Amino acid sequence: MRVGTKEDADVDVVAALLATLPPGSVATDPEILARYAGDRTGLRGAGPAAVLVRPADVAEVQQTLRIASAHRTPVVVRGAGTGLSGGAIAPPGGIVLSTERLNRILSLEPADEIAVVQPGVITADLDRAAAAVGLRYAPDPASYAISTVGGNIATNAGGLRCVKYGVTRESVLALDVVLADGSLISTGHRTIKGVTGLDLVGLLVGSEGTLGVVVGATLRLRPLPARTETMVAFTTSLAAAGAAVEAIVRSRVRPSMVELMDAGTMADIDAHRGTDLGTRGRAMLLVQTDGHGADREADELVDVLAAAGAAARRVHGAEAARLVELRRTGRGPQPDRWKVGEDVVVPRSRLVEMIRAVEEIGSRHGLLVATLAHAGDGNLHPALSVPKQPGQTRPPAVLDVAADELVRAALALGGTISGEHGVGVLKRRWLREELGDTQLALQRAVKAAFDPWAILAPDSFLAPDDGAGHSLVHVLERPGG
Amino acid sequence: MRVGTKEDADVDVVAALLATLPPGSVATDPEILARYAGDRTGLRGAGPAAVLVRPADVAEVQQTLRIASAHRTPVVVRGAGTGLSGGAIAPPGGIVLSTERLNRILSLEPADEIAVVQPGVITADLDRAAAAVGLRYAPDPASYAISTVGGNIATNAGGLRCVKYGVTRESVLALDVVLADGSLISTGHRTIKGVTGLDLVGLLVGSEGTLGVVVGATLRLRPLPARTETMVAFTTSLAAAGAAVEAIVRSRVRPSMVELMDAGTMADIDAHRGTDLGTRGRAMLLVQTDGHGADREADELVDVLAAAGAAARRVHGAEAARLVELRRTGRGPQPDRWKVGEDVVVPRSRLVEMIRAVEEIGSRHGLLVATLAHAGDGNLHPALSVPKQPGQTRPPAVLDVAADELVRAALALGGTISGEHGVGVLKRRWLREELGDTQLALQRAVKAAFDPWAILAPDSFLAPDDGAGHSLVHVLERPGG
Repeated sequence: MRVGTKEDADVDVVAALLATLPPGSVATDPEILARYAGDRTGLRGAGPAAVLVRPADVAEVQQTLRIASAHRTPVVVRGAGTGLSGGAIAPPGGIVLSTERLNRILSLEPADEIAVVQPGVITADLDRAAAAVGLRYAPDPASYAISTVGGNIATNAGGLRCVKYGVTRESVLALDVVLADGSLISTGHRTIKGVTGLDLVGLLVGSEGTLGVVVGATLRLRPLPARTETMVAFTTSLAAAGAAVEAIVRSRVRPSMVELMDAGTMADIDAHRGTDLGTRGRAMLLVQTDGHGADREADELVDVLAAAGAAARRVHGAEAARLVELRRTGRGPQPDRWKVGEDVVVPRSRLVEMIRAVEEIGSRHGLLVATLAHAGDGNLHPALSVPKQPGQTRPPAVLDVAADELVRAALALGGTISGEHGVGVLKRRWLREELGDTQLALQRAVKAAFDPWAILAPDSFLAPDDGAGHSLVHVLERPGG
Repeated sequence: MRVGTKEDADVDVVAALLATLPPGSVATDPEILARYAGDRTGLRGAGPAAVLVRPADVAEVQQTLRIASAHRTPVVVRGAGTGLSGGAIAPPGGIVLSTERLNRILSLEPADEIAVVQPGVITADLDRAAAAVGLRYAPDPASYAISTVGGNIATNAGGLRCVKYGVTRESVLALDVVLADGSLISTGHRTIKGVTGLDLVGLLVGSEGTLGVVVGATLRLRPLPARTETMVAFTTSLAAAGAAVEAIVRSRVRPSMVELMDAGTMADIDAHRGTDLGTRGRAMLLVQTDGHGADREADELVDVLAAAGAAARRVHGAEAARLVELRRTGRGPQPDRWKVGEDVVVPRSRLVEMIRAVEEIGSRHGLLVATLAHAGDGNLHPALSVPKQPGQTRPPAVLDVAADELVRAALALGGTISGEHGVGVLKRRWLREELGDTQLALQRAVKAAFDPWAILAPDSFLAPDDGAGHSLVHVLERPGG
C-alpha cells in the first residue's frame, strides 16, 4: 500500500535500490541522469527520472523490478538510446534501466547456427563475431554500428538485408525475460522449429519495453553468402525508380537489398561526403543479390530493370562497397534545420503513389523533402525539413501537419504507420486509427496480463488515451530515419 | 447469469443458434455430430457436442460467438480435422464450429505477392492457384492436400520446405479474427514490414483456437524458384544420415528440403507401394535445393555429403518427383497395429543423439520404430507401434511410457515437445515441464485477456490443470505424424 507523497515514494525506491544493489549499478547524479533522459527523437520527459540502474547481471534486473513493482514505480528500459520513436524517454520520477553492462556474447554455436547474447551487445559486434565463424546476424538497421540487440528486439528492427532475410523477429528463437514483478521466464526454443505454447517470443519482439525486460536472447545466424553482387541505377524521377522496384518484386529474384534514394538524399550525401550522386539522376536505386546464384540473379535483374526503363549497371569491389557505405552512413547532421523523419510502409504495388504523395505534401507546405526507402519492403523514410529561424525553440507546426498528412496517406494506401522504428510516444496519435478501438483495447488487456501495475513504459504506445504526450517536451531537432 | 441445469443451457444455445442462423448453417443430427467429433489422434470427448455450426460468412461466426459467450458455452473450431494433437475434439455439450464453408480464395495479388483467403481453403489448392501466377505458398505440411490454411495457422504448421522458407508464421501477414464476444478485429499488415502495436498475428498463429476464430488471412507468397535440384543418399545407419545432416547445416547451402527416413519408414513405404527402398540402405536422405543457384548448391552438397561419409547422387525429372511423392504420401495405414506418432524437435547438433535415444527406447520396450524427420530443422516424427491383440480396445500402456521417455529425451537435449503438430490435449502433460510455472501462468493470463469466459478450446493446452485429459477417451489408433 502506498502512502505519503510522490516524492516520498521516489525516495523510498532509490533507497531500496541503493540498499540492495552494488553501488556501481545505481546512479542519481543529475548530470548522469540527463545523459539517459531521451533518445534520438530529441523528445524528453516533463521531469527527470529519480534513478538510473545499470545492472551487471540478471539478478540485479530482477531486484530492480521487484522494487519497482512493490512501489508501483515506472520503469523504462533502454539500450543505446538510438531509438527514433521516443520509446526510451526517462519516466519523470521513475527508473531508467540501462542494459549497457549486459553486453556479452555468451556463446556462438555454428553447429546450430545460433548465438546466445545479452541485450546490450552492439548489433554490428555480433555480426562481426558471427562472421569469424562463417556466419552472419542478418538484421542490420542503419544504426547497427551503434544500436543494441536488445533495442533491435524492442522495436523489431529491420534494415537493408531484411528484404531477403526478414526482420529481427525472424532471427529471434528464444528470450529470457524479467517480468514486471521481477520473476524470470525463458520463452521460445533453441530449436529452429517449435510450437509449444503461445508464441510469447513473437509477442515480445517489437513490444518496445511494455511487456518485460529482455535479459537474454537466442538468435538465429545464417551462413555468409557464397557471393554478393551489386547493381546501381540512376533514374530521371523518383517515380521511375519506384516503378523499377515494382518490376523487381514481380520478377523471380529475391534480392538481398533494394534501396532507393531521392534527389534530396543524394544532395545531403554529396554535401557531406563530396560525392556527385546528384549529377547522375533524380533518384538512385542500389540493389544487391547474394548466394550461390547471385550473378545469375543480377543478370536477370539488369534485364528486368532495363525493361522497366531503369538502366542498371553492375558495380564491383571498392565501388560497390563505397555505394553501400554511402547509403548506410553518408548523410550528415543538419543542425540548421528542423526535421521530422518518417517510417511508413505501403504495399509494394503502391510505392509510386506513396512517393508522389510525399512529394506533393512537401511541395504544398514548402518543405525540403529527402526520401530514402527500403524500397523492396515498401518502407519509406521521408525526411521533411525547414530552416531554423533565430530564436525558435521548437519545430514549427507545419512539420507536424505535414507528418500527419504523410502518415494518413500511407494508411489510405493500405499501409502502416511504422515499418521498423516503432510507435513509442511519437506515433501514439495514429495508433487507434490503424488498430481500431477493439484491437487497441485487446492490446491493452494483453499488456495488463504481463504488467498489471502498468509500470513498464507506462507512457508509451499502450498508455491510456489520457496519459503522456502532453508530458513531453521537444528539446532538439528530430533526425531522419 | 446462468440458471438451471447444464442441459437447459445446451437447449438454450441450440435454440438461439437455430433462431438466428440460416438452417443450413446449424446441425444437431447425432450422425453428423459424430463425423465432427475428433481429429486424426483418434481421441474423442467424453460426450457429444450439442451442435455443429458451419457458418457461411463472417457475420455468422460473429453471431455464433455472441451466443456462445452469452451462454458461456465452449466452442471448438475445426478446419479439415486432420490435426494430430487433439486440438479439434468436440466439447461435450458445446459448439463445434467448422470453417469448411469459408473456403474461398478472395484475391491473389502478384504485384504484392499476397493472397487473401478464408480459413477453410485447402492448403494445396492455394499453392496451385498461386502457381498459376508464378508464385507459391511455401508452407507444405505433409497433410497439405487435405488440411486447411486455417488449421495450418492454428498449429503454425511446418512441412518440407520450411527448412528454407520458414513455417506458417513466416507466411502470415495479417488476420481477421472473431473474438470470444463476437467482435471482429483485423490485425497485422498487408505490407511486408510493420511494427505498429503488439504483434497479435504472431501470437494468434499457433494458438490452436484458444484465443479467437480466424476468419480471414492475408498470406505472403513467394516466386516459384528458377530451378530445383534433388539429391538422394542411402546410408548404412540412421546415425550416419543424422551426421550427414549436421554436415549440411555447417555448409553454406540452405537447402529447400532435408528429409530423413529410417529403415522402418522405408519398409512401410515398400510394403504399401511396391518399392525397394529398404534394400538400398538403413536410412535415406532426400535433399532439394532451389533458386538460381540450385545446381551449384547441389554440387556443393554432394561434396559435403561425401566428406561426411554419405554418398549422394543427383536425381532428376520423374525419379526425383517419385521420391518426393513417396516421402509425402508413401506410408500406408497399419490397422493391425497400435501406434503413437511423435513430433519432437532437437537442436540440429543433437540430431544423432536423439536418433540413438529413439532407437534405444524402441528396442528396450520391444516396439517397432519408424522415424522420419524434417531433419534440416531437427524435427523428428518417430512412430512407435505394437501389434493389436484380439479384444484390445485401447493402446497398451507401454506406448505411453515410451512416448513419455521419448519426449523427455528431446527436452533433455534442449529440444521442444512439438515442432509442428501443436500441443492440443495430447501433449498437455509435458507443457508445464517445458514452459515452467511462471510462464504457464502468464500464458493463461494472456488467454484470459482474449477469452475471459474460457469458452474457446477450454480443454486444450491452456486449460487449468484440473481440467480435461480425464474427459477424453481413446477410440482409435493414433496415427503417425
